[in-house]
Amino acid sequence: MSASATFDDVLAAARRLDGVAIRTPLLENARVNARLGGRLFIKAECLQRTGSFKLRGAYNFLASMSETDRKKGVVGWSSGNHAQGLAEAARLMGVKATIVMPKDAPALKIANTKASGAEVVLHDRVKESREEIGMGIAQKTGATVVPPYDHPWILTGQGTAGLELVEQAKVLGVMLDAVAAPCSGGGLSTGIALAVKGLSPSTSVHAGEPAGFDDLARSLASGTKQKNDKLSGSICDALLAPTPGDVTFPIAKQLLGPGLVVTDDEVLDAMETAFREFKLVVEPGGAVALAAALTGKLPVKDRAVAVVCSGGNVDHATFARALARRAA
Amino acid sequence: MSASATFDDVLAAARRLDGVAIRTPLLENARVNARLGGRLFIKAECLQRTGSFKLRGAYNFLASMSETDRKKGVVGWSSGNHAQGLAEAARLMGVKATIVMPKDAPALKIANTKASGAEVVLHDRVKESREEIGMGIAQKTGATVVPPYDHPWILTGQGTAGLELVEQAKVLGVMLDAVAAPCSGGGLSTGIALAVKGLSPSTSVHAGEPAGFDDLARSLASGTKQKNDKLSGSICDALLAPTPGDVTFPIAKQLLGPGLVVTDDEVLDAMETAFREFKLVVEPGGAVALAAALTGKLPVKDRAVAVVCSGGNVDHATFARALARRAA
Repeated sequence: MSASATFDDVLAAARRLDGVAIRTPLLENARVNARLGGRLFIKAECLQRTGSFKLRGAYNFLASMSETDRKKGVVGWSSGNHAQGLAEAARLMGVKATIVMPKDAPALKIANTKASGAEVVLHDRVKESREEIGMGIAQKTGATVVPPYDHPWILTGQGTAGLELVEQAKVLGVMLDAVAAPCSGGGLSTGIALAVKGLSPSTSVHAGEPAGFDDLARSLASGTKQKNDKLSGSICDALLAPTPGDVTFPIAKQLLGPGLVVTDDEVLDAMETAFREFKLVVEPGGAVALAAALTGKLPVKDRAVAVVCSGGNVDHATFARALARRAA
Repeated sequence: MSASATFDDVLAAARRLDGVAIRTPLLENARVNARLGGRLFIKAECLQRTGSFKLRGAYNFLASMSETDRKKGVVGWSSGNHAQGLAEAARLMGVKATIVMPKDAPALKIANTKASGAEVVLHDRVKESREEIGMGIAQKTGATVVPPYDHPWILTGQGTAGLELVEQAKVLGVMLDAVAAPCSGGGLSTGIALAVKGLSPSTSVHAGEPAGFDDLARSLASGTKQKNDKLSGSICDALLAPTPGDVTFPIAKQLLGPGLVVTDDEVLDAMETAFREFKLVVEPGGAVALAAALTGKLPVKDRAVAVVCSGGNVDHATFARALARRAA
């Protein structure tokens, strides 16, 4: 498959999402800037509908389908942000959605997905393959499978957040030296790269990953797709895709700078800073790019840098762990 | 003193604050709307510079002073959001600020105020009057006292948040039935009322207060200024002013609907909802209007209602108490 997404596709996605996706704010903090010796901006996608950027790609996908296909519905599998984004996008467009979720997914996530009007099919994580169940539903009903990241319609939808952040920085008179976004399969980071490079070619774009799940960073360094050794074991539950996508990796190779890798403790510290200084609730996976900037792995000194905080769907116990990193 | 502030003054304040105050987002949540049977919007002033709306009034005050007066500096007293807002406004305008703070104020708040470049004068809460110390500094240096709420320049600055929220609702095609904001001395609620009534006369505007500190609600009901019995004892540390202001009360009488009074437990529940559904960090005093909407004291059913979440400067322990109201 060729690198089939362009800057113009991101612009088209932005027109589809106009009035649907929230134009999330670009925030900065004088104290954090003083500490880092530069200007750090947060694109607060945790404030997006459904609590993450995932609505952008899902809605762009549904809006790009033919009317005939939309009538047959959509199907997806996810235990997290993609499920909620897809279910809400389907509700907004009046499309029937079926989401395959593991039986042992948090009750709140299942309830949230149902609350958007989606049909939820529960599966046994150990005995059954959710892909097979989802594909079976698609074959039987004619529904279209909406993948979480590896599709041009998905990644160009996510990229609209990148258009916004460059425009919002420009209003402030700021030319960004670097932009970074969290990365699992690469939909967000490659979409953002298309958008940012289209508007501001000299800005470097980076993907952030949790330590031990840095398949993209290693793939970029080696030039070929690498796999993670593990499928679980990071606090960043949204960023555990095993390897870069077939659609996303060619774009990543062309447009992304070196990857940024952060530890779980650095992520918890970044969540605490987001709480204390920016008044934002950021989930672990949503905070990896911020963590890279705060630790100096993505240098901010004498520069202007924007990081995407991509989601805020964190449970109470995990957020309490982040709060405990620093007493007030 | 006459009710000396007008809608036009709010418009003038908005011009001064353009590019300085963050145009904070107006957020809604499909699940919360479904539960309440209407549309509830949050104006997220917790995302404002310094973590509260206070920057708006302080900056408008400084920008309205004569150049001669600005050169002599400003002085204020506060242990909370006004101190941080005033210090940051002074930094942005290059004005010398002196803030009188209690010796036993949280170290973080003192550090934050100093970080904006303000001179902090510590006083003994029991033995010394901060007003006397502040007035003494003003007399000695010629500095201008910047009051926390009871001045036309302050309340019209705060009112710019009301202009924004009506405009932001209009973009969504929404005419608001009601708007509510937290209230201590009434600067925010009366400024918002001037703005909202100027743009949308049929929208009712309400002030929210903590139980036991509902001086404005009782003053509005009786028609004359009432006092609170206590000076402390609510989790809403930002909302403990003992009585409505001389400038704010005449405007409140003219423009505000009945007051809204909520308990500390209702406030903690609202903070938890802001965390879980809106991904916002809201401090107790900042959540009273939201609490009124979530409990039905401010009806949302079959209506469109906007509440201001006015600040996010909450310590870790208090936020953990809010999280503990509901396990994930």
